[in-house]
Parts: sequence; C-alpha cells; structure tokens
Amino acid sequence: MKLLEDRILKDGHALNESILKVDTFINHQVDPFLMQECAKDFAEHFKGRGITKIATIESSGIAPALLTSIEMGLPLVILKKQPSKVLNDNLYNTMVSSFTKGTNYELTLSKKVVDENDHVLIIDDFLANGEASSGAIRLFRMAHATVEGVGILIEKEFQPGRKKLGEEGIEVYSLARISSMSEGNIVFNS
Amino acid sequence: MKLLEDRILKDGHALNESILKVDTFINHQVDPFLMQECAKDFAEHFKGRGITKIATIESSGIAPALLTSIEMGLPLVILKKQPSKVLNDNLYNTMVSSFTKGTNYELTLSKKVVDENDHVLIIDDFLANGEASSGAIRLFRMAHATVEGVGILIEKEFQPGRKKLGEEGIEVYSLARISSMSEGNIVFNS
Repeated sequence: MKLLEDRILKDGHALNESILKVDTFINHQVDPFLMQECAKDFAEHFKGRGITKIATIESSGIAPALLTSIEMGLPLVILKKQPSKVLNDNLYNTMVSSFTKGTNYELTLSKKVVDENDHVLIIDDFLANGEASSGAIRLFRMAHATVEGVGILIEKEFQPGRKKLGEEGIEVYSLARISSMSEGNIVFNS
Repeated sequence: MKLLEDRILKDGHALNESILKVDTFINHQVDPFLMQECAKDFAEHFKGRGITKIATIESSGIAPALLTSIEMGLPLVILKKQPSKVLNDNLYNTMVSSFTKGTNYELTLSKKVVDENDHVLIIDDFLANGEASSGAIRLFRMAHATVEGVGILIEKEFQPGRKKLGEEGIEVYSLARISSMSEGNIVFNS
C-alpha cells in the first residue's frame, strides 16, 4: 500500500537493522485518517469470507483493528495482556514473548466473547517474530473458533513471523513489507 | 447519554459497590457503533474550543478516543503505560496509581508529539479516582500544552475523580454518570 509506505519513508525512523520507530503516526501519536485508509484496504482484501469478528492485541493494533471492524460492520475483540481485577473469570490464556519489550506476558480471551461459530480476522501493527499473532491464534483455537487470516500494517520480512504463521495454516496480508533496514534506510518488497 | 446508559443496564454487570464489568461492549469486546455514537457526542460537546489533539491512556480509552479524533478531524495521542525499547528518548513521564489493577505504572508522553501550542481533549472509558486522567493532565502541562477538558464514557460519581479534576481547573464531561452501585444494581444520575 503506497500511502503507508510513503508515510513510513517520510516519518518513520529505522534505528538499526531491526527497530523501526513509527511513533508519530501509528504507535504513540496516531494519524486516524491513515489508519482509516489501512482499514479500508483490510476490509476489501478480507471481504466475502464470512468473518464474524475482528481481533487485536492491546494496544498498538487497536486503532487499525477498530476501524476495520467499522468498515466490515463487525465487533472488535481486544486481547488483554494481563487479567485485570475486573476481568478474571472464564478466561482462555496463553504466554507470549514480546520482541519489542524483551519480556513475556500473559494474553487473555474471555469465553463470553467468542465461540466455535466465530471466524476471526486478527489485525496488528507489526509482524516481526509472529509471537503476538501466534498467541492470539492459540487463544481463538482454544475457543474452537476459526482464524481466517492476519492483517498487518508493517511486516519485517527478514524476521520469521510470516513463515511461523504460514506453518500454522494462516494467511498473512501486510500493507507494507520491509525486506531490509539499516540506520536511516528502509527497503520495501514492492 | 441514554444509548450508553441503556446498554450499561442491559449488558453491564455491577459486581459490588465499586466494580462494573463492561467487557462485552467497551473493554474487551468493543461495539464500534456504540463507540461511534459516544464519539459524536464528545465532538459535539467540545466543538469550537480550538482543540488540536485528542489524547487517551492505553488501552481501554483508545476506541472512543480514536473515533472522537476522526469526528473532530484531529490526531490522537496514546499515552503509554511504560516506555518500550523503541520509545525511550525525549519523554515526559509521571507515576500513576491504578484503581482497577491495584498497581502503579509510569505514564509517558513523547516530546515530539506535543508542544505549548496544543489544546488537548483527554478521552477515557472510566472516571473513578481520577488518577489516570490526572496523570495525563500532568504530562500535558509538563509540555506547556493546555488541557481543554476530559471526556468520559462512564463516571462513578461516588468516587472522587470529578472533584479531583475540578480542583485542577479541568471540565469533566461524562456520558453516563453512576451515582451508586451494588451487586446487580446500577443507579444513574440523570
């Protein structure tokens, strides 16, 4: 998606071969109109597949996932990174390793909001090692729901996320695919 | 706002005198169309005040805040609960106590996304003790920005949040104001 790639080149910053800062338009400050265009692209790509729910992992994927849920007329499920005091019964949970933060966390899904009839589209901001998406897929499979695909804003193709999700039988659709990075330099596969 | 109050009565669950579960339509599963109506209400209430940015605290406030930013044609700033590896230079930060989780966390704001010319509207899901909103206000004031007001989906009037923010000179506008709760029972001030 040229609009997103152009914005990454303009406002993104490759700090090194693996870390890309997009905190002025995606992660910290959000350009809602760019996110709306991304959501329209996801909705167009995944239409006609009987999807019943959009899902994402808190918190950077919420903006594009929410707008995709509006485009497709569906509810959104936000997977929580830890059980809070007010959301602690009847949960599926799984452990995930975070590449960005170098930590592990527990990802949770309430049994009240998903069942075996659901067909889920997972939307997230980044795909790198695929740990977050893979954890989300595990949770929905625990609920016997079907994961119809994963939509990603920015994929780091040089990391193993796509391969990992492919081995689990999941289609990955990414709007911007970065084939390599170095300090101040970003190369897309497009 | 009757639409939100009716939904709280239908799908919310008061567990006791202070904890309200809204995890099937606001917090965990999100009804994007309800959030859109809430956003329209915030945009209508706060129009004409020269607001330049919408802000929220990750992660439950992101949905209504993002949709308010779209309604008002403004960027969104998501305050992060901890600095990640990719967002660690040039930050304002402040400590916040979380009522819901019973923990403290560091709230952060990048100096790149706000300055003294900004007029900020803070949107969040709940107002209880006002600790999160108060932390957000401290951060924007560190940046010499002006906080124009706080928009809240659900206010627990019997907790001191409104008083606390009022003492800081901040207008609070809440769509649903709960005057008291007990197990299975919710009373609105409207």
